[in-house]
Amino acid sequence: MNDDALAALSEILGDGELLLDEADRARYASDGSGLKGDLPLAVLRPATTERLSQAMAVCARFQIAMITQGGRTGLSGGACVAGPAVVLSTERMQGVVEIDEDAMAMTVWAGTPLERVHDAAREKGLDFPVDIGARGSATVGGLIATNAGGIRVLRHGMMRQNVLGLEVVLADGRILSRLGKLVKDNSGLDLKQIFIGSEGALGVVTMAVLQLKPHAGKAMVVLLALPDFPAALSCLSRARTMFGDRLTAFEGMWPDYWDFVCGEARLARRPVSGTHGFYVLVEIADTDPADIENWFMALSEEGLVEDGILAQSIAEARALWAVREAVGEVDEALGPHINFDLGVASSRLGEFCEACDRCLADVDGAGRALKVGHVGDGNVHLLVAHDGRTETIHDIERAIYGLVAEWGGAITAEHGIGRLKRAWLSCSRSSEEIALMGLLKQALDPAGLLNPGIYPVPEPGADETGRHAC
Amino acid sequence: MNDDALAALSEILGDGELLLDEADRARYASDGSGLKGDLPLAVLRPATTERLSQAMAVCARFQIAMITQGGRTGLSGGACVAGPAVVLSTERMQGVVEIDEDAMAMTVWAGTPLERVHDAAREKGLDFPVDIGARGSATVGGLIATNAGGIRVLRHGMMRQNVLGLEVVLADGRILSRLGKLVKDNSGLDLKQIFIGSEGALGVVTMAVLQLKPHAGKAMVVLLALPDFPAALSCLSRARTMFGDRLTAFEGMWPDYWDFVCGEARLARRPVSGTHGFYVLVEIADTDPADIENWFMALSEEGLVEDGILAQSIAEARALWAVREAVGEVDEALGPHINFDLGVASSRLGEFCEACDRCLADVDGAGRALKVGHVGDGNVHLLVAHDGRTETIHDIERAIYGLVAEWGGAITAEHGIGRLKRAWLSCSRSSEEIALMGLLKQALDPAGLLNPGIYPVPEPGADETGRHAC
Repeated sequence: MNDDALAALSEILGDGELLLDEADRARYASDGSGLKGDLPLAVLRPATTERLSQAMAVCARFQIAMITQGGRTGLSGGACVAGPAVVLSTERMQGVVEIDEDAMAMTVWAGTPLERVHDAAREKGLDFPVDIGARGSATVGGLIATNAGGIRVLRHGMMRQNVLGLEVVLADGRILSRLGKLVKDNSGLDLKQIFIGSEGALGVVTMAVLQLKPHAGKAMVVLLALPDFPAALSCLSRARTMFGDRLTAFEGMWPDYWDFVCGEARLARRPVSGTHGFYVLVEIADTDPADIENWFMALSEEGLVEDGILAQSIAEARALWAVREAVGEVDEALGPHINFDLGVASSRLGEFCEACDRCLADVDGAGRALKVGHVGDGNVHLLVAHDGRTETIHDIERAIYGLVAEWGGAITAEHGIGRLKRAWLSCSRSSEEIALMGLLKQALDPAGLLNPGIYPVPEPGADETGRHAC
Repeated sequence: MNDDALAALSEILGDGELLLDEADRARYASDGSGLKGDLPLAVLRPATTERLSQAMAVCARFQIAMITQGGRTGLSGGACVAGPAVVLSTERMQGVVEIDEDAMAMTVWAGTPLERVHDAAREKGLDFPVDIGARGSATVGGLIATNAGGIRVLRHGMMRQNVLGLEVVLADGRILSRLGKLVKDNSGLDLKQIFIGSEGALGVVTMAVLQLKPHAGKAMVVLLALPDFPAALSCLSRARTMFGDRLTAFEGMWPDYWDFVCGEARLARRPVSGTHGFYVLVEIADTDPADIENWFMALSEEGLVEDGILAQSIAEARALWAVREAVGEVDEALGPHINFDLGVASSRLGEFCEACDRCLADVDGAGRALKVGHVGDGNVHLLVAHDGRTETIHDIERAIYGLVAEWGGAITAEHGIGRLKRAWLSCSRSSEEIALMGLLKQALDPAGLLNPGIYPVPEPGADETGRHAC
């Protein structure tokens, strides 16, 4: 890095806020994507917004690229370093600043792990409803930058729906602060929406106001074995009518996933015996078990369910969830594979998955496909094993993303584009949409310093090499 | 209007899609704001997105300003014509295109009135939860362009939270379409967020996919008379814990409003006798009346409520709602007044209203102030009577918006900036935020043709005349 830039940064950043040692820097090269990242020029981890702002202004002056990192748990490579760049880490911006119980609002630093947010809310008898497996490391800032989803989207929406206010530093160091705990605010454009889900390409989140919810009450967990996917949609529809917003999760597992996890890979105990066409894990909060039994009886009489189990204890509930959560361990057990995160209209998720299976059958070198997902959200995580060849990987991606394009779906429903999926963006978005993303990027970061290359913006007249047409 | 432009528009637009007669045009000059609008040059009301796109491209070519109108019910003047401009009306883009019951998604043309959306959803046993008084005329496109709120924000959020997809025409006629019914989609920036709440300044919404909800079930309506505002926050907190998301409305009325509506102006019958410090109207869906009585008894024992009534029939429920909904008739009964729509952190709404009263006492020519609002949302509608003098109006606005600035609040929580409030935007938003709004406007509509002057963007170096510093 330029000596003048280094001197300027050293003046701004205090003890431990600037890492230059190679061994230190090496820890910040990549994230949860499995991609190999480049060694960052330096790691900047200021503890205040003010110092981050000053440091970013220096980087802007010296035209140094900046990659923002939270807990580095992202699965799409959005925090992975590529090319000469410094890392901006929020790890020293931690802690809950305030909980306003009447407003049910928590003001929190961006570097705070999600689990601390959960705990702090629970101490006040409240919940923060967004939840993902990486809760121990994933940070508030990272969840906002990727508009994280998870298992409670069905009831509470994605991260976007749970953010009341943001403080953001722009590419040139300007601070944009709106932390007023306002539920309703139509005073001009709602600028925070632009930064939520922008994957570090438009600004760096330093602080947020999160909307808390009343504690959901005791959760009942039910596992249902069904004849097929359409039965799952019928069960979901009946559950919505009967339990309303007390229905907090409705997770689906296809037999390929179920049999691998409970059989061959032995990652979880099989909760119901026999072979079935589809499995769902349902969580219902704050409800009389008798109501759940009535729901189950009605479904059985209609022939919608073949078997089912209602957890009678916390241990039993955990055992049921274990089948669904084993997806985290499948990564190792399955061998080389691609982890797709696809979205379509929720009503068509079953047909879409059948189409995926059909088209994978024609791809040489593609192995088994496992499917697990969020039924009500139209979101499936499709894990496709392969022979490890680059060509096979590309053929599988082309086949699946081509299908997404045909179905008008999302190439990533919740993980984000990052570095892994940017080349396929045109399978989900029109050229008009991609051009508009480019316009916004240009308006906010004209020099293209924030996560360059990660954000999928073709500049006018730019070389399109590396992008795949759909 | 330029003859060539007129000829080009006449070629694109069919029978009844182009109004040039002065009497016809006069009906499109203004909206629900009470502002006097200018006569539009022409009214364009194409029935298809394609023809709107072509017509807008013509306007862009001839540098003709465009004001978009839906049902013209907006209260801030966002659809009011100012200066030489054509009106783009969505009134011929009406109708429900599709209801996908499994996905609980309705695809609908932008010009469809809200009430038709409600009815169409109910026919399928579903609800569209956003509701406002102007439901008979207000259109889907207008609700989206203003990010409408209303009485069910507490449970279902504002319009933004209930839109799954949008089709938008940009200033130059380009069509941006994303109507895929995707609940989850992190494939690049979520562009629809930029258009929601942009008040016609960034694009024209032509079609939307709305997220429907399961039917909420029978609503119970309770009116509570309380000692003061803090008691309302306590009642709300207890109701949230007890009823969770079955709590659908929690509307507050200050004694000034209550006494005017039920006393002097005789706009509604007084449901409870005596004088109290605060009144709330609570709606709880799908709940055993016994649970509501238990909640009420617990509140009484704590001294939080002084009196209350649970509606025993639909007629009684309507009579209770009548007090709250009389706000629509107050406009006439109160004489000259300003209708503020203010937002602060919900925990501080009571104190904020006291501060408003104190500062109004010092304004010469200010009359009585009535306050009614959405307790859980931190949103108060403050109606301030005055002597009709321009100077008084300005002094009242300066006093109240100055207070909003001090409190970090919203000068408009749900009605939008429109023409009425744009001059006060700096009381709610920092110069960095306003500059960023300007950048976005410039990126999307560089010639400034969409609702010019309505959208509060100071161009770099522009004359600031007419804007008030806070």
